[in-house]
Amino acid sequence: MAKDKVVLAYSGGLDTSVILKWLQLKGYDVVAYVADLGQLPDVDAIREKAMKSGAVDFYALDLKEEFVNDFVFEAVKFNAVYEGRYLLGTSLARPIIAKGMVEVAKKVGAKYLAHGATGKGNDQVRFELTAAALNPDLKTIVPWRMPEFFNVIKGRKEAMDFAKEHGIPVKATAEQPWSSDDNLLHISFEAGILEDPALRPPAEMFEYTTDPKKAPDEAEIIELKFEKGVAVKLNGKKYSPAELLKELNKIGGKHGIGRIDMVESRYVGMKSRGVYETPGGTILYAAHRDLEALTLDGATINLKETLMPRFATLVYNGYWYSPEMDCLRALLEESQKFVTGKVRLELYKGNITCIGRESKYSLYNKLVVSMEDDEGAYNQTDAVGFIKLHALPLKAHAARAKK
Amino acid sequence: MAKDKVVLAYSGGLDTSVILKWLQLKGYDVVAYVADLGQLPDVDAIREKAMKSGAVDFYALDLKEEFVNDFVFEAVKFNAVYEGRYLLGTSLARPIIAKGMVEVAKKVGAKYLAHGATGKGNDQVRFELTAAALNPDLKTIVPWRMPEFFNVIKGRKEAMDFAKEHGIPVKATAEQPWSSDDNLLHISFEAGILEDPALRPPAEMFEYTTDPKKAPDEAEIIELKFEKGVAVKLNGKKYSPAELLKELNKIGGKHGIGRIDMVESRYVGMKSRGVYETPGGTILYAAHRDLEALTLDGATINLKETLMPRFATLVYNGYWYSPEMDCLRALLEESQKFVTGKVRLELYKGNITCIGRESKYSLYNKLVVSMEDDEGAYNQTDAVGFIKLHALPLKAHAARAKK
Amino acid sequence: MAKDKVVLAYSGGLDTSVILKWLQLKGYDVVAYVADLGQLPDVDAIREKAMKSGAVDFYALDLKEEFVNDFVFEAVKFNAVYEGRYLLGTSLARPIIAKGMVEVAKKVGAKYLAHGATGKGNDQVRFELTAAALNPDLKTIVPWRMPEFFNVIKGRKEAMDFAKEHGIPVKATAEQPWSSDDNLLHISFEAGILEDPALRPPAEMFEYTTDPKKAPDEAEIIELKFEKGVAVKLNGKKYSPAELLKELNKIGGKHGIGRIDMVESRYVGMKSRGVYETPGGTILYAAHRDLEALTLDGATINLKETLMPRFATLVYNGYWYSPEMDCLRALLEESQKFVTGKVRLELYKGNITCIGRESKYSLYNKLVVSMEDDEGAYNQTDAVGFIKLHALPLKAHAARAKK
Amino acid sequence: MAKDKVVLAYSGGLDTSVILKWLQLKGYDVVAYVADLGQLPDVDAIREKAMKSGAVDFYALDLKEEFVNDFVFEAVKFNAVYEGRYLLGTSLARPIIAKGMVEVAKKVGAKYLAHGATGKGNDQVRFELTAAALNPDLKTIVPWRMPEFFNVIKGRKEAMDFAKEHGIPVKATAEQPWSSDDNLLHISFEAGILEDPALRPPAEMFEYTTDPKKAPDEAEIIELKFEKGVAVKLNGKKYSPAELLKELNKIGGKHGIGRIDMVESRYVGMKSRGVYETPGGTILYAAHRDLEALTLDGATINLKETLMPRFATLVYNGYWYSPEMDCLRALLEESQKFVTGKVRLELYKGNITCIGRESKYSLYNKLVVSMEDDEGAYNQTDAVGFIKLHALPLKAHAARAKK
Repeated sequence: MAKDKVVLAYSGGLDTSVILKWLQLKGYDVVAYVADLGQLPDVDAIREKAMKSGAVDFYALDLKEEFVNDFVFEAVKFNAVYEGRYLLGTSLARPIIAKGMVEVAKKVGAKYLAHGATGKGNDQVRFELTAAALNPDLKTIVPWRMPEFFNVIKGRKEAMDFAKEHGIPVKATAEQPWSSDDNLLHISFEAGILEDPALRPPAEMFEYTTDPKKAPDEAEIIELKFEKGVAVKLNGKKYSPAELLKELNKIGGKHGIGRIDMVESRYVGMKSRGVYETPGGTILYAAHRDLEALTLDGATINLKETLMPRFATLVYNGYWYSPEMDCLRALLEESQKFVTGKVRLELYKGNITCIGRESKYSLYNKLVVSMEDDEGAYNQTDAVGFIKLHALPLKAHAARAKK
Repeated sequence: MAKDKVVLAYSGGLDTSVILKWLQLKGYDVVAYVADLGQLPDVDAIREKAMKSGAVDFYALDLKEEFVNDFVFEAVKFNAVYEGRYLLGTSLARPIIAKGMVEVAKKVGAKYLAHGATGKGNDQVRFELTAAALNPDLKTIVPWRMPEFFNVIKGRKEAMDFAKEHGIPVKATAEQPWSSDDNLLHISFEAGILEDPALRPPAEMFEYTTDPKKAPDEAEIIELKFEKGVAVKLNGKKYSPAELLKELNKIGGKHGIGRIDMVESRYVGMKSRGVYETPGGTILYAAHRDLEALTLDGATINLKETLMPRFATLVYNGYWYSPEMDCLRALLEESQKFVTGKVRLELYKGNITCIGRESKYSLYNKLVVSMEDDEGAYNQTDAVGFIKLHALPLKAHAARAKK
Repeated sequence: MAKDKVVLAYSGGLDTSVILKWLQLKGYDVVAYVADLGQLPDVDAIREKAMKSGAVDFYALDLKEEFVNDFVFEAVKFNAVYEGRYLLGTSLARPIIAKGMVEVAKKVGAKYLAHGATGKGNDQVRFELTAAALNPDLKTIVPWRMPEFFNVIKGRKEAMDFAKEHGIPVKATAEQPWSSDDNLLHISFEAGILEDPALRPPAEMFEYTTDPKKAPDEAEIIELKFEKGVAVKLNGKKYSPAELLKELNKIGGKHGIGRIDMVESRYVGMKSRGVYETPGGTILYAAHRDLEALTLDGATINLKETLMPRFATLVYNGYWYSPEMDCLRALLEESQKFVTGKVRLELYKGNITCIGRESKYSLYNKLVVSMEDDEGAYNQTDAVGFIKLHALPLKAHAARAKK
Repeated sequence: MAKDKVVLAYSGGLDTSVILKWLQLKGYDVVAYVADLGQLPDVDAIREKAMKSGAVDFYALDLKEEFVNDFVFEAVKFNAVYEGRYLLGTSLARPIIAKGMVEVAKKVGAKYLAHGATGKGNDQVRFELTAAALNPDLKTIVPWRMPEFFNVIKGRKEAMDFAKEHGIPVKATAEQPWSSDDNLLHISFEAGILEDPALRPPAEMFEYTTDPKKAPDEAEIIELKFEKGVAVKLNGKKYSPAELLKELNKIGGKHGIGRIDMVESRYVGMKSRGVYETPGGTILYAAHRDLEALTLDGATINLKETLMPRFATLVYNGYWYSPEMDCLRALLEESQKFVTGKVRLELYKGNITCIGRESKYSLYNKLVVSMEDDEGAYNQTDAVGFIKLHALPLKAHAARAKK
């Protein structure tokens, strides 16, 4: 009788290698799957490790361009920030990883998915809600939530032992006192020594950015060109989405841009502490917002700002594929029709300063705003009636409040 | 027969001096009024100039503490930012100035208010909506919206001529190629050479902050203590609201913090370009948000974020005194009950980095979040049901979408 | 020299006839324009009166189908209700009337528009914001806001005198003690004896609906079929949008459905009192909402409900054609993809009761909800984890609140 | 050794009696607790049955006045309606029942709570979130989610057998083909034959209201007086909250008011169908909204409407006691300061028509709105500037959209 197939989101690390083997021992045919969102050093090495750990097959999908274009750029368009600071680097990656996993499952005829996320984090939710939305018939196996697994593989030591016992190659390197996750948009750090939010993370932890204090003494001015809310050129040169973000990461990282240290509210009900480096993304956000200021009317800006926390929370909580999100994204696309133009930014030791912007769709009218010319569209006396009618309800309120 | 009294918001500058005299010539008894929000260099000089320009009386109100405590700190509590960047430095000042003006009008028995704001800006709206809300019986005289005034005093030259003709003391200093407005929270710049949003403001314009490039090479770490959302101590020392902000301005200014260059949507329908320096305010916002992340649950954070653009727009548009604002501020007070604790920030060449936070009301629970201990409040298997039920509507949607 | 052309929104009534003549006397070539939204009794009579009043040309546009399809049905899709009760019957009509007026102006080469709305109402705003959005170069002439007009034509008597003097045909009928406005969606009443909100409107005022007390003693059951949020069939028979609404008006009117008596907040700052009859519209709203309950997930329902007051206010205030509205309507279209199905309603003496609904896209799953079967998608024990994780922040809050 | 104590929310029905005995057999000392929210026929009979079923103690709390004043009236103030129709009759009852349960637990020193709600409904969530918020240390036992219980007591038959076996008194009455739940605000029906949303509920099911078709042929006019949003008098007579609602239920029920038949989205992810009778509540909502229209400015109405779905969803989902709700209720209280006055309503065969309203805090100003008088607060020409400035962004958008 044929074994059941399971597609495992595989990283090549100790945890998912142990899970792979464990699933095999449980009687599954395990298809290892890895998505390249920009973090992958060596696909061949990962494939080899997967096969040694017992995989029956291995799939690596290069999703970099799709990730940046369909996920990262959408978040940029919405100026989406979770709880005022987090640029959603991991949240945006999970649905596309899960989408790839669902596609592989279809290709290999698997009825099961598996992942190595823990039962305390957001990622499990994001993986599984995406899978539910894309193929409600798939079942998910999550060893870190199964007592038969987590009561045996209690920690790193047990995992190492299990690996050795089953011939899984183990790196000799010492474990880092934090965990990290990276892709083209960001690298995140959490857990371990970061678990006390009163303490500062160690300087050696950071990977994507130079310490602002060690960044160049010379500022650098760049120019970004957007079309309909999407960055298409950097310093006059056209780039694909992923290449553009890569380039911005390089420049931003050099200038120490995009470090965030924060406490955040996980969907599963607890507070956690995360540290993030998002150099290129931070630049994109700053530039996009600046261009919107020039090309969106105030009412649309307000509408987008009002809905932004809702959008960001949906992304954070794992609802990328959901009817509500579809509605918000339809609104988003409509809003970006005229967000076309150029923004110049100065980068210097962690600072991004928008120093100039222009657009053929600019709503800024020098003639109207200037005090020099009063013949145009705007007559100063118009403000009289404007204010009087807006004051009417306030006066009615004031009059009755005296009673 | 007694003349009608008018209370004029007086700055001591050329424009309001001309207006003062002009009102006198129109037959009013003009009471000059100036509010000190931290920007006043020399009340006596202003008084003298007012009297020389024809005032019958002069009132100077020291509103610094009230301004910071009742206005600035409220905006900080709401993390209120207009269109993503503007910290509302002028918007918050206008209602308290107008409130003082209404009080002076009551004291001197005036039926009229006057101000020197133009017919194109936001300030006229803010002054007049405040007056309407606080005393609907007062009438407002706005020379810059009256053809009999602005057709005569067309520009700086005519104003100078008028001043000389009527014995108003005029400074010999050259006019700056921009206009500015300052108080304890910020200094703003607009108009003149800033009217092209594609061009960078000149380095010599800035007043409150050192250029980040010239800021100290040594970072400085500070600690702010909040009680119910209000900053009460800096580096362990208690300050009054105004003194604390003053101190933060000094420190922030030194480190080049709080410069913003942006295009914004005025209430009166046009886009304008403003440049702002808000050193102390920027620090307060960063620290307050960081503390909220520790002490507010995610749902309350989301509620506040969703309403923030509405609050900021009300402030920006001049509705500080309005029933809607009263409702939002009631919500705001309630939200801050537990926003008590300390935040440590590192300041360095324009950067503010939150590097540590603690609170006796912290919602962060190391035991829950840690992977080390699984006996506590959180059982990993709980996530199974959590995800399954949240996936239910997505699955139902996916199933029917196939049809 | 050629005269300037002005397109006048003409009703055939006394006021707009007087305005027509007055504009002619002012030296304009007046093109009379009337839009048929279902209220037009006799186009030929109106044309004749327009020409007798001095028009150089006359345009009548039949906009009934476009009105119902592109405006009324959009409001139904959003369940749009202003201030809890008003179904926007007049607000939806104004932008399409103005759109037609702008089109006629283009056709005849007019640079001016004119209308007979007063300076106190919402309609002036709706007409003029629409015109501004569709052709910002057109200028608007509004006699009721021009002292040279309203100081002469002070009231009905002066208008009658002016009409007689200039050969404008005048009906001998007595003036009604209220004003009304009607189209396919509703008839509205305001002013006159309705101006005291403490008093009940007279029974003889109502036109579209039978008094519920005089409605049939027999209930009537109808079935509406929707496709993507749009009603396409009534009792199994296909109708065009306008025909369907006409038919529903007949049925609803017979059963006394859709009367509303309310105080409302005008955009121009004052409270007014309006009485409305919207028989067919009220039925459409009830049926559509019932079908959405079956076919939209809770999150999307909540999103739509949250944005509904914003949409309704935009419609009410005259912003049908605006970038913000375009965004909301993009979201709206997306939301209706699966709002397809049938609703059965019982109509009886003013009541609409939804008594049954079905849809091939129904999200209702009898198997899941029933207590009889527990093998399916839903395992009762799943709720344990769901509740525990959602309780986590409440527990953390409770624990710290004790401190 | 002393047994553990558990407080059971007890109804006197078959299910909770079986649970009581089952808990006793499991080794607990069961304290039966019943809250009177207006639905209790005979406390003594319930007590007797509880004791016969094995309770060690019995507590009955009369919470009627608190329920109406602190819960129902709050929902009325917010015009809170879930998914457009549901007046939250059950949702509002659960937190107060749970609050009583937590109080009894404290009194008797119990560490456990138990309830008879199923694992598929909303009530389990509401009970348990309330308990978590009020006393995070209490643990909850829910037999209907425990396999050892629900695998044995599979249905009514097994429950009856268990009851007989353990000497629990069993009524001979046949089971109704639906389940119901009632309190002073409403009675709800669900399950059984209601599980097909395409089918109409049977006429004999309804309990609180006369069928509109059988309601009196004579309309009845009532007058409600509100103070700060709270109904305090009916037809000129003062009532306590619970007495007033009782009286309104009588009158409303007589006239066939307040029946709703709908599909709704449960928090636990599924759609369900409910039928509700809320006679008095429906009248309160109609009257309160009408009075708000007179006494709240448009901006505050819009703010409340925008937040209403959030408030209603929090109530529905069980978050009565939560920091977010505290914020919303602070806003709510502030909003009601001037919602004082009288509303007259006509009740007739299911219809509520607001026919008159008055308030000393009315914002309605006949002089302003009337066309008869133009000297007052409102000058028609003021609208010119009002419209021109509001048109400015639309014109700027139109001009650039042509490009």
